[in-house]
Amino acid sequence: MAKKSAGPQPTPWREVPELLRLPPGKPVDLASYDPRDTPVGPADKAAGLAATAETAPLLAGLQERLFAASTAGDRRRVLLVLQGMDTSGKGGTVKHVIGLFNPSGCRIRAFKSPTPEELEHPFLWRIAKELPRAGEIGIFDRSHYEDVLIARVRELAAPDVIERRYGQINNFERSLADDGGVTLVKVFLHISYEEQRRRLLERLDNPDKHWKFDPGDIEDRVLWPDYQRAYETALERCSTDAAPWYLVPADRKWYRNWAVGALLLAHLEALDPQYPPGDFDAALCRDRLLSMG
Amino acid sequence: MAKKSAGPQPTPWREVPELLRLPPGKPVDLASYDPRDTPVGPADKAAGLAATAETAPLLAGLQERLFAASTAGDRRRVLLVLQGMDTSGKGGTVKHVIGLFNPSGCRIRAFKSPTPEELEHPFLWRIAKELPRAGEIGIFDRSHYEDVLIARVRELAAPDVIERRYGQINNFERSLADDGGVTLVKVFLHISYEEQRRRLLERLDNPDKHWKFDPGDIEDRVLWPDYQRAYETALERCSTDAAPWYLVPADRKWYRNWAVGALLLAHLEALDPQYPPGDFDAALCRDRLLSMG
Repeated sequence: MAKKSAGPQPTPWREVPELLRLPPGKPVDLASYDPRDTPVGPADKAAGLAATAETAPLLAGLQERLFAASTAGDRRRVLLVLQGMDTSGKGGTVKHVIGLFNPSGCRIRAFKSPTPEELEHPFLWRIAKELPRAGEIGIFDRSHYEDVLIARVRELAAPDVIERRYGQINNFERSLADDGGVTLVKVFLHISYEEQRRRLLERLDNPDKHWKFDPGDIEDRVLWPDYQRAYETALERCSTDAAPWYLVPADRKWYRNWAVGALLLAHLEALDPQYPPGDFDAALCRDRLLSMG
Repeated sequence: MAKKSAGPQPTPWREVPELLRLPPGKPVDLASYDPRDTPVGPADKAAGLAATAETAPLLAGLQERLFAASTAGDRRRVLLVLQGMDTSGKGGTVKHVIGLFNPSGCRIRAFKSPTPEELEHPFLWRIAKELPRAGEIGIFDRSHYEDVLIARVRELAAPDVIERRYGQINNFERSLADDGGVTLVKVFLHISYEEQRRRLLERLDNPDKHWKFDPGDIEDRVLWPDYQRAYETALERCSTDAAPWYLVPADRKWYRNWAVGALLLAHLEALDPQYPPGDFDAALCRDRLLSMG
């Protein structure tokens, strides 16, 4: 029998991975996904903010368990990979969603254009160095996917080199999942061409946001269709069972934040990390502590 | 004429550095500081929590300015150094105070016992590697001070080696302040012997906290007076004009959190970082953006 509820039902974060996952091996048509959609969970801003606030203590609690477990040898960790067009909200997601965690257990890395040193190495070299340690939540703001996105659109590498990279990425991610204890949560923040314009205008109209603005971002919009195609290829070829891609509609910031939080929550719950038992006699320690004055 | 206030007065964070600073060159007698004291600011828990919440948007706002300024060449950064006895709340401070910042601009490092590799280098080697970059808030949970604290109490180095370290630390910190653009905020979290017992008992009585408990922490209490003396020596000899030490009474967690937040806020306000102007013509960019469709 259903128990009478005293308040609003919890938002259904457990269903989120299934509903936002891009099925492995299926073609991806980005135009068929509405960036303003709310396919699961809260449907308006007030409900979205409330639902995100509701997940905060759950996220922080599971993070603490994950970290605690690592002190007793549990090698598991989570890696959130954020990708999306300029202004899609990668930085905002870090601020608002990752800000719900204890910062000491988060390892956040933003990947810019490769340095000369990085270019001398295989493209996964700089990525491997920045992976989260056991018990940590890693966050990549951009990632190795840039090497099949901007690299493809701007022809920064030969076509056969880029072609090989999809398989290299899949092998790399499989080894992280299989041998590295890494739960990958790969999120594509899907915004519309119109929303990007609105956000760029917002930056232009507010001098306090000019530091975030690059006139090159405007010229990049000419390449919008190429970027969408490059994303479709990457999402299709690199959404695997070991490391699926999730598509998060991101025109609405409150929905984006809720959805990314929900994805992390569902994955952390599935890991079900446990506080490790102490390897000491608590009663004995208690007596000793009290006897010392 | 005083303006009529519409609400409670803001808590006096600007006065906090002056009032909590340990004056350079003066002997330090820790017993003369009450760890339950509230020498400035809120006097009870409700007021403390409200005051800390009040500082949150100010801290985040100044952090964003500091980061924004760094993108235009401002080399300044802040480094919070947290020291204190076991259970004094270094980790709790990171969670509750640093958690108020945008995590992407924070560089948090916890220093444990040195590794074999670290021991092969001068004691400041591992510290220098982990300094914050321009625009960042760095946080050290323990630091180079361990090399004149536990190293002194446990005789991990020869007396003349430890003796030299105070001057080496002062030179190092002066160079960070003078040439590195680093504003050092060194905080000693001052707890009482009785409060430590209470917190250790709390960990023992809660199986979910056993992972934080080390029976060795009890035996370390025998050395409490030695640690207090080592702290007094370090605080006295390394509170300098370039990098003063602040003593924060830490038996009350809400006061500790407020005071550390207030110290950071006062220092960030004094830095007064500014959003940099854009090096582009905003009107022209606007036209171009709108003309592209």
